[in-house]
Amino acid sequence: MGERILVVGADAAGMSAAHQCLRSAALAAREVDVVVLERTCDTSYSACGIPYLVAGMVNSPDDLSARTPDKHRAMGVDLRLGTTAVGIDLDKRTVDALASDGTASTIGFDQLVLATGAEPIIPDWARDRSGDLLPGVAAVKTLDDARYWLEVFADSGEMRSNRRRGVVIGGGYIGVEAAEALQQRGFDTHLVTRSRVMSTFDSTMSARIEEAMIDDGVTVMTNTVVELVEIAHDGTKILHTAGGRTIEADVVMIGTGVRPASTLGADAGLPIGDHLGYLTDDRQQLGEGIWAAGDCCEAYDRLRGKNAFLPLGTHANKQGRICGFNLVGGDRRFAGVLGTAITRYHSASAHIEIARTGLSTTQALEVGYQPVSLTTEGGTASGYMAERSSIATHAIADKGTRKLLGVQIVGGTAAGKRIDTAAAALWGDMAVDDLAEMDLSYAPPFATVWEAIQLAARRLADAL
Amino acid sequence: MGERILVVGADAAGMSAAHQCLRSAALAAREVDVVVLERTCDTSYSACGIPYLVAGMVNSPDDLSARTPDKHRAMGVDLRLGTTAVGIDLDKRTVDALASDGTASTIGFDQLVLATGAEPIIPDWARDRSGDLLPGVAAVKTLDDARYWLEVFADSGEMRSNRRRGVVIGGGYIGVEAAEALQQRGFDTHLVTRSRVMSTFDSTMSARIEEAMIDDGVTVMTNTVVELVEIAHDGTKILHTAGGRTIEADVVMIGTGVRPASTLGADAGLPIGDHLGYLTDDRQQLGEGIWAAGDCCEAYDRLRGKNAFLPLGTHANKQGRICGFNLVGGDRRFAGVLGTAITRYHSASAHIEIARTGLSTTQALEVGYQPVSLTTEGGTASGYMAERSSIATHAIADKGTRKLLGVQIVGGTAAGKRIDTAAAALWGDMAVDDLAEMDLSYAPPFATVWEAIQLAARRLADAL
Repeated sequence: MGERILVVGADAAGMSAAHQCLRSAALAAREVDVVVLERTCDTSYSACGIPYLVAGMVNSPDDLSARTPDKHRAMGVDLRLGTTAVGIDLDKRTVDALASDGTASTIGFDQLVLATGAEPIIPDWARDRSGDLLPGVAAVKTLDDARYWLEVFADSGEMRSNRRRGVVIGGGYIGVEAAEALQQRGFDTHLVTRSRVMSTFDSTMSARIEEAMIDDGVTVMTNTVVELVEIAHDGTKILHTAGGRTIEADVVMIGTGVRPASTLGADAGLPIGDHLGYLTDDRQQLGEGIWAAGDCCEAYDRLRGKNAFLPLGTHANKQGRICGFNLVGGDRRFAGVLGTAITRYHSASAHIEIARTGLSTTQALEVGYQPVSLTTEGGTASGYMAERSSIATHAIADKGTRKLLGVQIVGGTAAGKRIDTAAAALWGDMAVDDLAEMDLSYAPPFATVWEAIQLAARRLADAL
Repeated sequence: MGERILVVGADAAGMSAAHQCLRSAALAAREVDVVVLERTCDTSYSACGIPYLVAGMVNSPDDLSARTPDKHRAMGVDLRLGTTAVGIDLDKRTVDALASDGTASTIGFDQLVLATGAEPIIPDWARDRSGDLLPGVAAVKTLDDARYWLEVFADSGEMRSNRRRGVVIGGGYIGVEAAEALQQRGFDTHLVTRSRVMSTFDSTMSARIEEAMIDDGVTVMTNTVVELVEIAHDGTKILHTAGGRTIEADVVMIGTGVRPASTLGADAGLPIGDHLGYLTDDRQQLGEGIWAAGDCCEAYDRLRGKNAFLPLGTHANKQGRICGFNLVGGDRRFAGVLGTAITRYHSASAHIEIARTGLSTTQALEVGYQPVSLTTEGGTASGYMAERSSIATHAIADKGTRKLLGVQIVGGTAAGKRIDTAAAALWGDMAVDDLAEMDLSYAPPFATVWEAIQLAARRLADAL
């Protein structure tokens, strides 16, 4: 029996850590015994794919699985599904666990990896007195959520004919993706958000997204908070807003964000940051032989110069992999985040790609920059090519230093992924002039001769 | 009458210079008189759009025009079409010109901008004894070439029924685009190249492109040189290769590359580089009050540390604009090139995106690096999304310094433009590890959780 590595959580971060640890140990001819505890019965699935599964664009929940439990086991992971870690004893180096059948156990470890992810924030009104979610109300976060929604949509009795009124709570990534899913399912869709749609974007860009969704038939209610829900005799949920309005709904999708699932470690006295995520160092270490990775952690934001909570599969995979190396003597470091993200709103009649990187104007002001921003209209291909769709690029730079601070994109097909070019520029701490001058690719089906994001950078550079 | 700025050439570089000069002069309240001489009757059209016009994907030659001659004149440019500059007298500060009607004139200047572009290299066998191109033989470079091909394709007598055998000479960007155009027009297409298809790519990537074109029905003949052409009684052109093979053709598209059109300045003693392009400084200055921009120039290659000849509309526009500023006292500098480029091969049954940036392995060896390269297979979207297409990313880095040297992409829809992220990393002189670690965008319709080019960088970083 080798050194016992205990991983809590079997999704992106946890399984990346487990497998990298096994690979690195094998290379170093080191004996490790990797045990992974997972609360649910699912491992390593694409959480970001849940809205598309719910929308009916993915055939089955199995398609979202990167690897089956059996595959993980065949690769050497001692995987224990339906097993919830309920407490850590740092002195005794043990974790107390509870199996789904109620059996309690205590598992010793030499090193521990916390990869418990994030949990959806569910408003109180969404639950009944016993704490259960109301019928027809759920989040869009886990495979279990997806299975619930697929059942609801398959229930032709409940959802037949005109009983297709759907409300999405939340205007962020999940909210927009849930609205896409409801539209795709033929619902009459409301999107309710306490501020505006995609509020980490500058307001002019939020306005574009809202407008496009409204044009596509979504009722967007900004600056709106639901306070309570009443259930009518026919099962209709009547949502009452703080402003005194009511919205009738058959289904309510909760997409009001997530918070780090960090109570397990917090209760054991492990360090927690301002955003309530684990506060690791850049090696993902939390304490002596204690590591954390993924959505339960905070991450260093390179532009803000401090920690942020940006739960994303990309960071989870990178951090998990780093843990895996470092568990067996490696010295890999997580280089931080920029706040890069992408989503879309897609329906039979609309296709909007939405992407951002770096700081918004609000965030830049918080850091102490003097942000200047400009939105530039462009195209994803030459004007005479059928491939062309429109792209609005909002670029933000610091007046004093000319440093590029952030870029936001709202456009049609082939617009969104251009954000990565801006992300690379931010990663290299470049000036807006660099983005304007760099040698980017051009051919008529792919770009305009002044590439759209480059034109935006040039215009902003001229305006500084 | 203000200072006389004389521009030779009215395409991307020349007209960018002319208009920026007018704008900058207006801002500086400086009087300028901008005269532009243009050999043809066309101004400011998208040369890169010619293959798509020839393919029938663009409705009319007019669609490729950014601005009409009248529009340029209305904006203050004294535009003289059909006027060829035939000599420069640097002492007298004059240019001798010849109008299309044979009228000679001498035009004085205070400052001169040479923006004469590049000219296609036409093999001797493609011409008859009087120097004219053989019937059914032309390049794919200018609007006049495009008009010729549109006429040929419209001529139902000549091109009817089985007389649709097309040969493309050249395996570079124009060659691949010409093959696309011929396939699109229903020709039985041969592509003949003296080396391999896309020879500025590493050979494994060339092989992928060749394979995809062959799968789509193009006969690709590599390492093949045409030596002479015989014309049969029925007009069939019989191409004889150096290897003793023959190819029968009704039309032959010449895409064997271009060379800088720099004899005008060379004859006047202006500096010319190793690639026969104008040798400007980074302000695009060639001599006292003499400037040059665009495809007639060489450009500083940031990775090779010396000049290269990379004729592209993007550089032409940037350099023209820089000239425009500097003509009226500005101090803008051209920051150099990376060798970024993109094209595609598209037909009813195939869509291949092809892109590169930086150095190939051969080029890296020439510079003195120790290049290590690796091709990584990936996807443009998550495996469970209908949007997914395949992408092969070939990354090259220096063994000693871990510096990223180049990236090449061959893939399906949404693959090609990812090259810009690598270009930005090269612009920032980053290591392959930076590309592997940076915060790029992910959502299932747009990427895999390890973005394809990032996965390629990670694998290469591990292999160094």
